[in-house]
Amino acid sequence: MSNNSAIGVFDSGIGGLTVVKSIVESMPQENIIYFGDTAHVPYGTRSKRQILHYVLSDVKFLNTFDLKAVVIACNTADSVARQAVEDAYPDLPVFGVVDPASRLAAAQTRNKKIGVIATKATVESGAYEKAIAAYDSEVDVLSAACPLLVPLVENGRFQVGDIVIETVVREYLDPLLAEGIDTLVLGCTHYPLLQDVITHLYPDLNVISSSDAAAAKLLGTLIREGLCNEEPGSDRKYFVSDDAEGVDKLARVFMREDLGGTFRQVDVE
Amino acid sequence: MSNNSAIGVFDSGIGGLTVVKSIVESMPQENIIYFGDTAHVPYGTRSKRQILHYVLSDVKFLNTFDLKAVVIACNTADSVARQAVEDAYPDLPVFGVVDPASRLAAAQTRNKKIGVIATKATVESGAYEKAIAAYDSEVDVLSAACPLLVPLVENGRFQVGDIVIETVVREYLDPLLAEGIDTLVLGCTHYPLLQDVITHLYPDLNVISSSDAAAAKLLGTLIREGLCNEEPGSDRKYFVSDDAEGVDKLARVFMREDLGGTFRQVDVE
Repeated sequence: MSNNSAIGVFDSGIGGLTVVKSIVESMPQENIIYFGDTAHVPYGTRSKRQILHYVLSDVKFLNTFDLKAVVIACNTADSVARQAVEDAYPDLPVFGVVDPASRLAAAQTRNKKIGVIATKATVESGAYEKAIAAYDSEVDVLSAACPLLVPLVENGRFQVGDIVIETVVREYLDPLLAEGIDTLVLGCTHYPLLQDVITHLYPDLNVISSSDAAAAKLLGTLIREGLCNEEPGSDRKYFVSDDAEGVDKLARVFMREDLGGTFRQVDVE
Repeated sequence: MSNNSAIGVFDSGIGGLTVVKSIVESMPQENIIYFGDTAHVPYGTRSKRQILHYVLSDVKFLNTFDLKAVVIACNTADSVARQAVEDAYPDLPVFGVVDPASRLAAAQTRNKKIGVIATKATVESGAYEKAIAAYDSEVDVLSAACPLLVPLVENGRFQVGDIVIETVVREYLDPLLAEGIDTLVLGCTHYPLLQDVITHLYPDLNVISSSDAAAAKLLGTLIREGLCNEEPGSDRKYFVSDDAEGVDKLARVFMREDLGGTFRQVDVE
C-alpha cells in the first residue's frame, strides 16, 4: 500500500520547520505542504481567543490540499487549539507535538521530575502537565515560560559561547535544575536550535525535542496504517501569510540548508 | 479658546505609551484615547503591505471617537503608512514621531553624523534619512535595525549592569559610534526605556527620544492653534485588540506607574 497525499504542517511562523526537518530525516519520500502564519507570528504571547481564531484559519487553508495528515507543529497552537481543530475537522487525522513529547519524557525520566520550557501561552494552558500525567500520574512537571528564546533564536543567537543566550538560558533553566529535573522537554519549535547550548551548560540533562518526537509518532502511525508514500520524487510546498521575501534565508537556518523548495505568500483570512 | 476633544494615539502594541507618557508630562489636562494593536504586534518585522493593512484598521477605530488629533506613536507605522493615513483621512490632523525627531536631530548634531536605531521595517523604509535630509541635506545618517531590543525591553531587560542588554546594545551601537555619530535617534517607542543603558555605555552621545520629540511638536501645534484643553478633569481611555488581561502591568512599566486608566479589549478588524 502507498499513499502519496501530502502531509500538511503548520506553525505560527517558520519555527515549525524544525518539525519538517525531523519529518524529512525519517520520511524523505513524503510530500509536504508547509504553512507559516507570519502575518500573525508569534502566537505564544497572545490570548487563547486570538490563537484559536488564527489556528482555524491555518487549518482551513491547509485543508484545501489533498492531505493524509495535518501536523500542528506549533506547541502553542497544539496546546491551546488542538481540540477546536479536531472538532472542526473530524475526518482529518491531526498530529501534534505535545503528546509525543510528553510520552517520551514520561518514559525516559528516572527520578520522575520533568522540566518543560515553552511559550507563555503553552505554559498557561497546562497542556504538558495534563499530557504527561496521562502517561505517568506520579511525575512532577516543572514548567517555565521563556519569552526571550524565540526572538534570540530568530536573531541567530544559539551558538555555544554566546554570553547573551547562555545568560538567558541559565536564568530560565537554573531554577528547574535546582528542583532536580533529570529530563527537559523543548516545548517550542524554535528550541531544538538551542540543544547544543543547553547540553553544553547542563551535560547530564536528558533533552527531548518535541519536533523529533512529533515526527517519530507520525512515522509510526503512517507505517502502521500503510500510509507511507513509496513513490519516488517527493515535493515540498512552502507558504507564508506575510510577504515571502527574505523568508527562505531564515528558513534555511531551521532546515540546516535542506529546504528543497521556496516560500510563497498566500492570504488565508 | 479651549478644545476638549481627545488626542488619539495608536501603536502596534503598548510601547506607544512612552509617547502618551511624554504627552501627559507636558499636557496633563488633555483627554487621550489610546489603541494598541496587540493582536498583531510587532509591526517592525512585517511587510509594508501587512503594516498598511493594520494601520488603516487602527485609525478607522480611533476615528470613531471625537478627536482633535491622531498621533502615530509607532515609528514603523509612521515610516511605512503615514501617507496612506493622510490620504484616507484628509480632514484628520495626523502627527507622527519620525519628523519631530528628525528635526531635533538635524538641529542638534554638531558633526553632521546622526545615528538612528529602529525596527527592520522602519530602517528599510528610509523614512528617517528622508526626513533628516529635508532639514539638513549635508547630514550623514547611519541606521541600524535592532530586532532584539523590543523583546528585551518587554521582558524588563533595560537595567544598567545587565550583561544581556549591554552586550546587545553594544553590538548594535558600536559600529555607529565607530563611524563617528554624535547624535542618536531612538526610533522606536520601546527605546526610551534604554536611555539609561545607552547613556551609561556612551556618556558623550546626544540621545534623542522620538517619543519626547513627538509630544513636544504636538504641544507646540495645539498651543499655536488654540486647541489645548483648558477644562479640568482629563480622561484617558485605553484599548487593545487582543485580551486586556495582564496588559495594565506591562503598561505601567512604560508609563512609570502613571497609567490613570485601565485597558479594555476591542475588535477592530
